[in-house]
Amino acid sequence: MRAFLDIPADSPFSLQNLPFGVFSTADNPTARVGVAVGDWVLDLAVLQRAGLFDGPWLRERLVFAQPALNAFMVLGRPAWREARQRLQDLLRADNPALRDDEALRARALWRREAVTMHLPATIGDYTDFYASREHATTVGALLRGPDSALQPNWLHLPVAYHSRASSVVVSGTDIRRPWGQIHPEGAPGPIMEPTRQLDFELEMAYFVGPGNPLGAPIPIEQAAEHIFGLVLMNDWSARDIQRWEYRPLGPFLGKSFATSISPWVVTLEALEPFRVPGPHQEPEPLPYLRRREHRAYDVHLEVHLQSDRMERPQIIARSNHRYLYWDICQQLAHHTSNGCNLRPGDLLGSGTISGPTPEAGGSLLEVTRLGERPIRLEGGDARRFLADGDRVTMTGWCQGDGYRVGFGEVTARILPARAG
Amino acid sequence: MRAFLDIPADSPFSLQNLPFGVFSTADNPTARVGVAVGDWVLDLAVLQRAGLFDGPWLRERLVFAQPALNAFMVLGRPAWREARQRLQDLLRADNPALRDDEALRARALWRREAVTMHLPATIGDYTDFYASREHATTVGALLRGPDSALQPNWLHLPVAYHSRASSVVVSGTDIRRPWGQIHPEGAPGPIMEPTRQLDFELEMAYFVGPGNPLGAPIPIEQAAEHIFGLVLMNDWSARDIQRWEYRPLGPFLGKSFATSISPWVVTLEALEPFRVPGPHQEPEPLPYLRRREHRAYDVHLEVHLQSDRMERPQIIARSNHRYLYWDICQQLAHHTSNGCNLRPGDLLGSGTISGPTPEAGGSLLEVTRLGERPIRLEGGDARRFLADGDRVTMTGWCQGDGYRVGFGEVTARILPARAG
Repeated sequence: MRAFLDIPADSPFSLQNLPFGVFSTADNPTARVGVAVGDWVLDLAVLQRAGLFDGPWLRERLVFAQPALNAFMVLGRPAWREARQRLQDLLRADNPALRDDEALRARALWRREAVTMHLPATIGDYTDFYASREHATTVGALLRGPDSALQPNWLHLPVAYHSRASSVVVSGTDIRRPWGQIHPEGAPGPIMEPTRQLDFELEMAYFVGPGNPLGAPIPIEQAAEHIFGLVLMNDWSARDIQRWEYRPLGPFLGKSFATSISPWVVTLEALEPFRVPGPHQEPEPLPYLRRREHRAYDVHLEVHLQSDRMERPQIIARSNHRYLYWDICQQLAHHTSNGCNLRPGDLLGSGTISGPTPEAGGSLLEVTRLGERPIRLEGGDARRFLADGDRVTMTGWCQGDGYRVGFGEVTARILPARAG
Repeated sequence: MRAFLDIPADSPFSLQNLPFGVFSTADNPTARVGVAVGDWVLDLAVLQRAGLFDGPWLRERLVFAQPALNAFMVLGRPAWREARQRLQDLLRADNPALRDDEALRARALWRREAVTMHLPATIGDYTDFYASREHATTVGALLRGPDSALQPNWLHLPVAYHSRASSVVVSGTDIRRPWGQIHPEGAPGPIMEPTRQLDFELEMAYFVGPGNPLGAPIPIEQAAEHIFGLVLMNDWSARDIQRWEYRPLGPFLGKSFATSISPWVVTLEALEPFRVPGPHQEPEPLPYLRRREHRAYDVHLEVHLQSDRMERPQIIARSNHRYLYWDICQQLAHHTSNGCNLRPGDLLGSGTISGPTPEAGGSLLEVTRLGERPIRLEGGDARRFLADGDRVTMTGWCQGDGYRVGFGEVTARILPARAG
């Protein structure tokens, strides 16, 4: 499968990928839906107006001339497949329809470096799971001691909590260091200060497709039909705020100041060749959570850190989506098992993706072994937590035979706290 | 202040109240904004089209011909005051403008019993606080034992958690008993069953007005300017699901199957005469949470229960909004203190409103003293938790001199669980 555009073998956006996103351009600030391919963005609103989506699902429904993917997400897998097949067809080297139509190409193809990316969807609710056993064990040990690190429920259900939808931002948005109430060890009482323990969390998240009405659970066999695609996520965390506030109702302001996601949503279709078995589950989950098929994905993940004194980023962690104990279908089935309704565009995060190897820590808490082993940065600085000016960039990709299905990146820089 | 409509002294919807809601009618299913007055609903979309909102804020902005109050909420207090003053003026007994215009009255006035109410706003995020000291103490003792009932942070900050926006429903919507993973005491492992411990929680909640951009906290002095108004809320809870799942990240499926709210939003203007001092706060909160004025409200609250074998509802609890330890401005200031953005239409709940008197328990957990004293119902039945067919109705009102500023009710009936 070869495109008429030149796509390097290490490009995240091969013809096999075709992730969906929402973008605008300098000459047209109206946000609309596009697909990333190589160094280009293909404007689907233009293609649709030109009549190039002529299949039964997309001929009449103008879902691409919209500032969010929700209207496309709600249509479900038949529509997603129709779009994907049409686009792979149009981009093929041996198809002249787009290749040789210079006027159409001029309107529909944009240099990726020149477009502005937006949030891919209007997010109704954002839920974050806690699906990595290694992460739950390490963080539990830090907060509660090693004896009650993993709570008794953890191996029986995918623990999760509702998080904040309003403060989900797209990659590239700077992150302001938050103030918060903290209670330093030994202090007589809490104080209000900028966080001293700003951390990242390496996650992936998926967007809900059609979803379900209130009161009608989605069984695990049908869960994948309700998952549109995945993005990278950095769930910023202020550990000192979180530690003081989280009992008994869970994280709140320690997380809600910002969550960053990558702009290109990689569909389950594109990820299909990279499905692998997940970790063995013992005890066996209850029937409503029992896996019917492999739903772990072999996505290589990296975290890069660059301080404002460094000339280039440095890799500080590597992990993989396949390490998650609870897979995405188990998560979705559990979420709806009480009848809770999921709506198109809802975002479900994995929780921090740590893994069994020493470098597979998905947060500074883990990478530094709870602060005992600060990271040494090139140039001599060290880090227990993030400093102002630091840039954190996460990347992720599946390695195919001569091509990649990649997620691009989610990146952001830390700004100093507001004046008090 | 007398209206040309006949309004009984015990009507919740006096001329002093004028709560906003979203309704539709049999002959016009388009949802639009109305105001409740006595036994009537006044159609504001009709009044606006007739040119009766001629002040600077509402002359041009068609915020009432909308299926949600968000567009009105975003305008802020000057617009809310303008609407209120205009409506009180139009409804006055001595103003012929609406009183004597029979054609307009025929289009603009609906019998309240004949309209269908909808959710008042599109809710972006729904946050629930835990602001009643008595509730936190009782529930904490049940779940963790009396020694760690109130967590160390509780007196220093208004504890809260993100809850589920998608499953907030309007009063009158039946509630399906949820399934969930529970771990009965003494059982060898968890099981998947319909909840055996379905409970209500008596709450009030407020809608956010203009809100704040990400990164810009709202100081407590300005908090009230961002609060549009209040409703009654029943935060349904499955105690057995909640108890098993909630560690360490807080309640999730034990709550997310449904939350009911009353349809009429009572504005802070209407509640102004009923501001009273809240409970004494010791230790004194940090400066960013320190009260600048009285922001407790003297709202009488009642919970009524009616089983399908009873002829009339029975009062099972009485409480008052003024019992809340953390007031609404403290809640909002805390919520934004880390820069978290609130958007128009966001919903912030109080948490269960219990109080210092024995009957002031805001949930069955508390009313039954953790199940030790089941409620005796007229006709002989008893209740530790809710049974299928039970109807729970909550009411609330402020008592003025010869009039009421009331919230109406939030009511719902329990349907049996889905077949397994």
